[in-house]
Amino acid sequence: MHTPPLYRQLADHYLDAIRSGTLKTGERFPSIRLMMEKHAVSLSTAVQVCRELEDCGVLEARPRSGNYIRQPDDLPKPGALPPPAPVDTDVYVGIHEKVSWVLRASQRATIKVNFASAYCAPELYPLKTLQDHMIKALRQNQHLLGAQGPNCGHSALRNILARRALTAKANLPAERIVITNGATEALNLALRAVTRPGDTVAVESPTFYGLLQILESLNLRVLEIPATAHAGINLLALEQLLQGAERIQALIVTPNLQNPLGSIMPDANKSRLVQLCAQHTTVLIEDDTYGDLVDTEQPLSTLKHWDRTDNVIYCASLNKTLAPGMRLGWISAGKWHERVEMLKHTQSRGCEALSQLAVSAFMKTPSYERYLRRLRKILTQQRQQMSAGIARYFPPGTCVTTPQGGTLLWVELPRHHSSLALFHEGLKAGIQISPGDIFSNTRRFDHFVRIGCGAPYSPKIDEALATLGQLLKNQG
Amino acid sequence: MHTPPLYRQLADHYLDAIRSGTLKTGERFPSIRLMMEKHAVSLSTAVQVCRELEDCGVLEARPRSGNYIRQPDDLPKPGALPPPAPVDTDVYVGIHEKVSWVLRASQRATIKVNFASAYCAPELYPLKTLQDHMIKALRQNQHLLGAQGPNCGHSALRNILARRALTAKANLPAERIVITNGATEALNLALRAVTRPGDTVAVESPTFYGLLQILESLNLRVLEIPATAHAGINLLALEQLLQGAERIQALIVTPNLQNPLGSIMPDANKSRLVQLCAQHTTVLIEDDTYGDLVDTEQPLSTLKHWDRTDNVIYCASLNKTLAPGMRLGWISAGKWHERVEMLKHTQSRGCEALSQLAVSAFMKTPSYERYLRRLRKILTQQRQQMSAGIARYFPPGTCVTTPQGGTLLWVELPRHHSSLALFHEGLKAGIQISPGDIFSNTRRFDHFVRIGCGAPYSPKIDEALATLGQLLKNQG
Repeated sequence: MHTPPLYRQLADHYLDAIRSGTLKTGERFPSIRLMMEKHAVSLSTAVQVCRELEDCGVLEARPRSGNYIRQPDDLPKPGALPPPAPVDTDVYVGIHEKVSWVLRASQRATIKVNFASAYCAPELYPLKTLQDHMIKALRQNQHLLGAQGPNCGHSALRNILARRALTAKANLPAERIVITNGATEALNLALRAVTRPGDTVAVESPTFYGLLQILESLNLRVLEIPATAHAGINLLALEQLLQGAERIQALIVTPNLQNPLGSIMPDANKSRLVQLCAQHTTVLIEDDTYGDLVDTEQPLSTLKHWDRTDNVIYCASLNKTLAPGMRLGWISAGKWHERVEMLKHTQSRGCEALSQLAVSAFMKTPSYERYLRRLRKILTQQRQQMSAGIARYFPPGTCVTTPQGGTLLWVELPRHHSSLALFHEGLKAGIQISPGDIFSNTRRFDHFVRIGCGAPYSPKIDEALATLGQLLKNQG
Repeated sequence: MHTPPLYRQLADHYLDAIRSGTLKTGERFPSIRLMMEKHAVSLSTAVQVCRELEDCGVLEARPRSGNYIRQPDDLPKPGALPPPAPVDTDVYVGIHEKVSWVLRASQRATIKVNFASAYCAPELYPLKTLQDHMIKALRQNQHLLGAQGPNCGHSALRNILARRALTAKANLPAERIVITNGATEALNLALRAVTRPGDTVAVESPTFYGLLQILESLNLRVLEIPATAHAGINLLALEQLLQGAERIQALIVTPNLQNPLGSIMPDANKSRLVQLCAQHTTVLIEDDTYGDLVDTEQPLSTLKHWDRTDNVIYCASLNKTLAPGMRLGWISAGKWHERVEMLKHTQSRGCEALSQLAVSAFMKTPSYERYLRRLRKILTQQRQQMSAGIARYFPPGTCVTTPQGGTLLWVELPRHHSSLALFHEGLKAGIQISPGDIFSNTRRFDHFVRIGCGAPYSPKIDEALATLGQLLKNQG
C-alpha cells in the first residue's frame, strides 16, 4: 500500500483530534500560517488540509474570523476521506491569505536585492524638482493648510490631467475627474460605485495581486479571464463568459502595459472590448497606471477613447511614473461620476492639496515630457539587461516576456519548478521576487515569477540573478 | 371641507398621472430635488409626497438609482389615500439625500458669513509653523517622495500619538495605531472591519451628519439613541435597545465634546457604557476628534481608558485641532487591528509622509501645548460672545447649549420654527447655518440649528446673527 500524501496524513491527524475531543466544537482551528510553522509544511499543503476537513464537514469557515471546529453527525472513518473535490478555478478561494503571507514573509526578511518592486529606483524620479515645487507651493499659499481641499481634488491638477488625456485620445473633462489616494483608492471607489457584495467581477489572468486583495476585501467574487503577453485579455473567452449564466457586473482591465504581463492591447481589441461590455451592460473599469511608461513617443489609446456610452470608468495614478511617495491617483467614472464623488466624500474627503499643486506645477513645464522620455529610455535598457541576465543564469526552457515599456518582466520557468519555493529560498539569500502564485486564484502560474527592472543593472543585481539561477538548478 | 395639505395634493396629482398612463411603469420618478424646483415646495413636502406614493405602492425605490414607477393591482381612488403611516424613527430613511441637498445648496450660494463650519478660523491655526516644519522635513529627507510610506503610517507620528494618549489615560501602543486620511477614513475602516452590509449600527441622536452619510454609503442600518447636552448618550435607552430583539453590531459614540451637542460624558457613564457594550458584544467605536478642545487643562478620559476587553475602537483626527488642510486621522482598533491594517492597505495604502513628519516635529515641542492652551481660551471667549449674540437677537424661548469646549453651539428654537426654512432664507442673505434636520433621520431636530463659533466675534458676525433673528421673527 502506498503512503497517502502529506495533506491526507495531516487531515487524518486532525480528524482524530476532533473525534477524540481534543479539539472541541466551537474551537478555533489553527490558521494556515500556524499550520505551516507547526508542521513545517508548504502553503499549498496547509490549504489542502483545510479543504479536506471542510469537505468532511468538520470545519466551518467564519468570514473574517477563521475556521472553527464543528461536529458533524457522522464523522468519516480514518483513511475514508472522499477524493479531493475538483477546484473551481474561476472562483475566489482565498488568495488574500496567500498574498498576505508572502508580503509578511518579505517584511520579516532582510532584503539585499528586491526584484519584487514595480517601482523605479528612487534616483530615477525627479524628486529634487518635485521637492522644490512643494516648497514653492507652500510659500505661495499661506492658507494651504488652513482649509480642507475640494472633495474632487485641486482644479490645477484636474485641468492638466484632462488636457493630457486628450493626447491619449480620451475625453476626460476636468470636472468629471476625482483625485484619489492613488489608483488603489480609485479602484475601490469604482468597485463600490457599481457593485454590491457577492457580485462577480472579471479580471485578467494573471493580474496584479493588489487588485485581488481589493476584490476580496469588498466581498466580490472573481472570475479570471485568460490573457496573453501578446495581446492582453482573450476576447473570445470573455465573450463566452459574458454569454454564460453568471452575470458579470464589472470587468477590470489594464489595456496598456498590464501588470504582470506587460501586454498592450491592439486598438482593434480595445474597441471590440468596449463594445462587448456595453452590449452586456458589464461595467468596464480601466486601470491605466502604466500607460505613460510605454517605449514609443506616441501615446497609447485608452479604453475610454473607444467608449461611446460612458460605460468605461477610467482609473490611473502618478505613483509609478512620477513619485512613489505621493498618493496621487485619479478616476473619471463615466455615468457613475456623481456616485463616485459622493463615495469619495464619505470614504476619505478631498486629498491634501500640496502634492497636487507641486505636481501640476511640474507637469505644466516642458521638463515633464523630457523627464518621461529619458525615463522610458533608461527602462528599455534596464529591461534588456535584466532579460539578458535571466537568459544567462536561469535554466534552459525559461521564457521571458519582451514588453514594449514599463518596469516588469514576466518569467515562465520550466513547468516542474516552483516559484513559491524559489521565493522562500531567495528570501533566505536576501533576494526578493514575486512568485506567480499570487497573481491568480488558480495554480496556473505556480512556475512563473515577476521580476522588476526598476533599478539600474549592476554587479549586485547580476550576482542576485546568478543566485536565483543556482537555486532553480538545485530544485532539479 | 378643509383643503388637504400640499403634499396630499401633489401626491394626488402624481397618482392621476400614473392612473392616466402619463407616467408609465418602469419610468424614473422625479428626484426630490427636481420636485422641489418644479413645484416650488419645501424639502419635507417633497419627501412626504414620495412617502405617500410609496405607501400606495406606486413607487419602487431602487438602491443607488432613485424611485421608479410601478403599477399596483389596485390603485387607490383620488382623495382616498391612507392616513400617513407612523414613521419608523429608528431606521434609516434616506438622510443622505437630505444632507447632499443641503450641502449642494450651500455650495451654489454666495456665503458671506459661515456658521456651518466646525473648524476654527484659519488664522487661529499654527499654519506658518507647520509650513516651516514641512519645508524642513522636505530638506532633511531627500528620498521622502521616492518610496511609498509604511502602510500604518510614520513611526514618528505614531509614537507621539501613543505618548499623548497616555495622558488621557488610554493605552494605545504605537504599533497598534494606523494613520488614516482623517477621522472619516478611520470611521470607514472601523465599520468595514466589524460590520457587514445590512447590520445595525447605533449612534447618538443628534449626531454628526457626515457619520450618517458614511453609514448609508456602507449600507448599514442606523439606530438612534437619545443623547443630551448634559451627559451625552442616554444609557438607560441604550440598555433597553441592547436587550431588544434587534442585534446592534456596533455603537459609535463621541464621548468628549460631541458634535453637535458639545456634551461630555461623566466618567461613571463612560465606564458603564464600555461595560454594557462588552457584555452585549456590541463593538464600541469611539470618535475623539474634539477631545483636545476642552476648556480645562486636565485631559478628558477616553472610552478606551475604561476598556478591559479590547472591545473599543478608538478614532481621532488632528483636522479640527491643528490643520484642516491636513488629512491626519488615526485609529487604534483593539482586537481588530490586523483586519484594519489589511483594509487600510487595500483601501488606500499608507498615507503620504510629509504631513506626518511636520506635525510630529511640531507636537514634540512645548509650543504645541502652548498653542492648544491659547486656542482653548480663544474658543471659550468666542462661544460666550456668540451665545450672547444669539440671546440678543433670537426669539424668546430659544435655548443654547453651554459646552465646556470646542467650536459648536446647539440651538433649540421655539418649536414652531423651521430650521430648514431658516437655512434657505439665510442662504439668500449670504449666511450659512447647519439645520438640525440633517443631524438625524428623525424629524426631532427640525427646530434646532448648529452654530459654529470658530471665527473671532466681529460686527459682521453680530449683524449676521441679527439677520437670522429677523428671519425667525418673520417666520411668525
